[in-house]
Amino acid sequence: MFNQPRIAIIMGSKSDWATMKQAADVLDLFGVAYEKKVVSAHRTPDLMFDFAEKARDRGIQIIIAGAGGAAHLPGMVAAKTTLPVIGVPVKSRALNGLDSLLSIAQMPGGVPVATMSIGESGAQNAGLYALQTLSISDEDLAARLAKFREDQKQAVIESSDDLD
Amino acid sequence: MFNQPRIAIIMGSKSDWATMKQAADVLDLFGVAYEKKVVSAHRTPDLMFDFAEKARDRGIQIIIAGAGGAAHLPGMVAAKTTLPVIGVPVKSRALNGLDSLLSIAQMPGGVPVATMSIGESGAQNAGLYALQTLSISDEDLAARLAKFREDQKQAVIESSDDLD
Amino acid sequence: MFNQPRIAIIMGSKSDWATMKQAADVLDLFGVAYEKKVVSAHRTPDLMFDFAEKARDRGIQIIIAGAGGAAHLPGMVAAKTTLPVIGVPVKSRALNGLDSLLSIAQMPGGVPVATMSIGESGAQNAGLYALQTLSISDEDLAARLAKFREDQKQAVIESSDDLD
Amino acid sequence: MFNQPRIAIIMGSKSDWATMKQAADVLDLFGVAYEKKVVSAHRTPDLMFDFAEKARDRGIQIIIAGAGGAAHLPGMVAAKTTLPVIGVPVKSRALNGLDSLLSIAQMPGGVPVATMSIGESGAQNAGLYALQTLSISDEDLAARLAKFREDQKQAVIESSDDLD
Amino acid sequence: MFNQPRIAIIMGSKSDWATMKQAADVLDLFGVAYEKKVVSAHRTPDLMFDFAEKARDRGIQIIIAGAGGAAHLPGMVAAKTTLPVIGVPVKSRALNGLDSLLSIAQMPGGVPVATMSIGESGAQNAGLYALQTLSISDEDLAARLAKFREDQKQAVIESSDDLD
Amino acid sequence: MFNQPRIAIIMGSKSDWATMKQAADVLDLFGVAYEKKVVSAHRTPDLMFDFAEKARDRGIQIIIAGAGGAAHLPGMVAAKTTLPVIGVPVKSRALNGLDSLLSIAQMPGGVPVATMSIGESGAQNAGLYALQTLSISDEDLAARLAKFREDQKQAVIESSDDLD
Amino acid sequence: MFNQPRIAIIMGSKSDWATMKQAADVLDLFGVAYEKKVVSAHRTPDLMFDFAEKARDRGIQIIIAGAGGAAHLPGMVAAKTTLPVIGVPVKSRALNGLDSLLSIAQMPGGVPVATMSIGESGAQNAGLYALQTLSISDEDLAARLAKFREDQKQAVIESSDDLD
Amino acid sequence: MFNQPRIAIIMGSKSDWATMKQAADVLDLFGVAYEKKVVSAHRTPDLMFDFAEKARDRGIQIIIAGAGGAAHLPGMVAAKTTLPVIGVPVKSRALNGLDSLLSIAQMPGGVPVATMSIGESGAQNAGLYALQTLSISDEDLAARLAKFREDQKQAVIESSDDLD
Repeated sequence: MFNQPRIAIIMGSKSDWATMKQAADVLDLFGVAYEKKVVSAHRTPDLMFDFAEKARDRGIQIIIAGAGGAAHLPGMVAAKTTLPVIGVPVKSRALNGLDSLLSIAQMPGGVPVATMSIGESGAQNAGLYALQTLSISDEDLAARLAKFREDQKQAVIESSDDLD
Repeated sequence: MFNQPRIAIIMGSKSDWATMKQAADVLDLFGVAYEKKVVSAHRTPDLMFDFAEKARDRGIQIIIAGAGGAAHLPGMVAAKTTLPVIGVPVKSRALNGLDSLLSIAQMPGGVPVATMSIGESGAQNAGLYALQTLSISDEDLAARLAKFREDQKQAVIESSDDLD
Repeated sequence: MFNQPRIAIIMGSKSDWATMKQAADVLDLFGVAYEKKVVSAHRTPDLMFDFAEKARDRGIQIIIAGAGGAAHLPGMVAAKTTLPVIGVPVKSRALNGLDSLLSIAQMPGGVPVATMSIGESGAQNAGLYALQTLSISDEDLAARLAKFREDQKQAVIESSDDLD
Repeated sequence: MFNQPRIAIIMGSKSDWATMKQAADVLDLFGVAYEKKVVSAHRTPDLMFDFAEKARDRGIQIIIAGAGGAAHLPGMVAAKTTLPVIGVPVKSRALNGLDSLLSIAQMPGGVPVATMSIGESGAQNAGLYALQTLSISDEDLAARLAKFREDQKQAVIESSDDLD
Repeated sequence: MFNQPRIAIIMGSKSDWATMKQAADVLDLFGVAYEKKVVSAHRTPDLMFDFAEKARDRGIQIIIAGAGGAAHLPGMVAAKTTLPVIGVPVKSRALNGLDSLLSIAQMPGGVPVATMSIGESGAQNAGLYALQTLSISDEDLAARLAKFREDQKQAVIESSDDLD
Repeated sequence: MFNQPRIAIIMGSKSDWATMKQAADVLDLFGVAYEKKVVSAHRTPDLMFDFAEKARDRGIQIIIAGAGGAAHLPGMVAAKTTLPVIGVPVKSRALNGLDSLLSIAQMPGGVPVATMSIGESGAQNAGLYALQTLSISDEDLAARLAKFREDQKQAVIESSDDLD
Repeated sequence: MFNQPRIAIIMGSKSDWATMKQAADVLDLFGVAYEKKVVSAHRTPDLMFDFAEKARDRGIQIIIAGAGGAAHLPGMVAAKTTLPVIGVPVKSRALNGLDSLLSIAQMPGGVPVATMSIGESGAQNAGLYALQTLSISDEDLAARLAKFREDQKQAVIESSDDLD
Repeated sequence: MFNQPRIAIIMGSKSDWATMKQAADVLDLFGVAYEKKVVSAHRTPDLMFDFAEKARDRGIQIIIAGAGGAAHLPGMVAAKTTLPVIGVPVKSRALNGLDSLLSIAQMPGGVPVATMSIGESGAQNAGLYALQTLSISDEDLAARLAKFREDQKQAVIESSDDLD
């Protein structure tokens, strides 16, 4: 049986997948269905608008969008949907993602984007934030996220024993 | 009848209220119940942990946290709950909020914070993002957010007629 | 007789007009027809796309777009037209336009935006750059621009005499 | 028959060619004639002025100038011609092109430079922006640019199918 | 006989040890007992608070805390103890430690952290600063630190003779 | 009876006193004796060295040094004493204290300075950090600092009740 | 009798005089003759080159050049003379002189500019640096500069007595 | 016969020699005698003061000082001599020399340092600037510097012929 994706992971360029894969890995780990696409704000603007406009009706609940440099993708998708959009600033070649971070975070009042940290940790957190969002009305997922946190804690404690 | 708050707006200092009030105004506009508190990561660390730990069981669904400078509040609350936490970088005195933005956005993998833009527009967007999050499973709210966007659009169009 | 505008000046918010008026003043000085509109990338995305898509057929030859903060307007208009787009980074509240500058300038390969300096001087230069562009095939305009430069030179020389 | 160059690509140092070649490649793709030269603002100031002064009379219509660090070349050429000048900030050794970007973009009112993004994507965009400028009065070129955009779009769509 | 540690070296992640080892090396050189642990502000918040709360009673006199990115560890430990806390900004992947530095240094009034320089030199200095702190009431240690400075001086003088 | 100062507050210019007074106020509050002086690294270098060299023998235990811009004072005093030196980056005219912060924090390995936050909160924290340092071997002071923290906490809680 | 100016103070705009006057005041104090002019790199490029080319033959020994924003004046004058050029980054409207500083300081190898600090203190220092340069071969001037330093020292010492 | 050095090249650490060697190479090329030393502001403060104090009487006419990070060396040497001091910001590990540049350039009014660009080109320019300074009263040197510029020009012209 087909598993309707609840989350969409989009990115401005195929090269962003190395980063955005961290979001997908988290969703795989929790068994939450997602779709993934390259959607470029600047090279496929109409597809982007079409994607954003139809996302809610297609059953998508949360959109994760990664982009680098001018990084307009998350903000423009957010302009075309009232679904929550999570933005991941991909590390850029010259400015190391500082441009991506500012472009994604500094949205004007009226159209929010939830900005994560720059790069792979940001993509991982985008996946987790999507799950935390879904957990508001899903006690089982909330319990599994709590377990994930507990495992993280144990990993830290064990790593401490390995120092030196 | 008492209206159980679904959203908590917290801030590191009472002086942040001038900024964070924008989030409250949005929630008031949509008639969504919220609570508001000063909770300082550095001056009331235990209260902060207590707040974060109990938030889900108290019925809170989303936490909006504003802070400036080192701005540890959003990230530390996020470390103590699996509820979604929205961070608002308050404009700081010396560095205009660049420090707040980096401190809130650059969270390590494992504990996400949804960072908004610096200052009042970021606070307004925090309110809207909370509503968009709730709208995932609330069609009526989704429709009202779409109406809000439509009103925004009309205001822009009218402002254009006023140029000069 | 109606004078078909060759240049469009658009801006993300009516408050940007204080800056963008410098571009209009230059065009007025040279008697080149233009239109001006508030078009918001985030609040009126469809109008923006519609505007960009039809601009060439409506006789527009150059688009000047001003925006602050995330400042997606110039880049998104550029994504929807092959007309030259000139971007003006409007000074933003928290980061003084550094965010606007990076968001406008750091476009990915494939979709260029001609970025000017931050603020009023950038808006003035957008007007001049549009005229210089038109002067490629307009000898009279080229001569008038050369005269404008000569006047600028004389003004500098006279200001030097006034020192002290 | 000799093909009169309409565009000049100049750069401050031979080492900038690795970057500026991207502009040349775009012009080659569209079969638009160009010339290329190393012209240093600081090491060959008189040649630079001579070049800028005579460019229009020699039939040059647009100047693309790349430079890194203090990066005075685009602005100084712009000071000596009323032709449109496109500036490409070359990535610098210590500051990754942030210095180049600010030096090129922050021109004073009166003498505009059209700044592109830092590095190779900026050079590619300089070529495209020059073509878009020429397309104002060249319908065939406009059509070919539209085709180029369409190809870009298809490449994005295909790359999306390759994810994973 | 067990040597009660006077200094605790903690860090947000095991990967920070490559940096923080420089602090340990300095303490080893001076024969001052220390303990070392991975304590994560975000992944082990309760352990962190427990650690900070009990540190003074356990005989710890100074806490050295290293962290990168959002780098909340030093400030949050400082919020839970009145012992002096020395913060080391670990070099971060995207922003080279500028984020770590601002997050650690920009603490609000009321809860100080003593920030060192970014990276390994900062970790070494954290060890030395701890020793200088202990030397206030330990003349022997003060003399040994003076000797260390003298050796540093001689090393510089000798290195000068090796130039070329 | 004369109260031997245990702490010295020095600053690079008399105009820094507006900032550094916050450090003095904290020490006054706790009744800890201090001296205060203008000592300029660049305008009184010999006095600075003389001050630093003799500080320990004169009974000074901790030096608080505030400076803005190039802000060499804390680092140079630290080079001439093994006493702990706390540096306060004073907000500078052009760069808002970012230059002061980097100049004070980025000390090379071997000569540590304990850097506080920029401006008045940093000065207040310098006073508190000095007291925390003294509290290592002063149980009464430790208790009073704990009480100060408790008062801070109560002030936050009360301010929360005042919201709106 | 006419006093041949040994130093030229030039600036990109008459509005820079408020800053550059500090350089003139220092030269007046020492009775060293200077000339002052507005010379704009972008608006009077030929005059700038003419000025730079003839400066040495006219008896000018040192050039002080102030400019803001793109701030090409010092570097371009330096490209046209082998006299020492001292650059003063004037505080710019949007970026507070950070752009001016980078544009002036980041000169390529081969054409040096001696960069001072941003704003009025930088202009004052430009005057002093010019005098220090002349003092290499002028013992009397060296003695007067030493006296100036001594006066500065006394002023600091006296200001210290005024604290509080 | 011994050739009295007119120029001193000093640096904060032996590792800076890789950079500062560019200054020495320029002086070698022109046959101007110099001395070179490692002198650390923080590790050999007394030697630094002794060096600076005696430099003029020993016949030194110009001091070139390179340093990275906090980079106090040029400014502190300048505080102890009225000879012209040229500062070279060495590229630092974490912040790529931006910290070095700000620490060297942002000197307070009264004590100037002539700041060059970051890294090797800055060191080369320090050598050239020293020579330009000496050329004020040395026509032969002025002529040789003009010849050096001419050679630079020819090298650029030839490199242009090699493009592609």
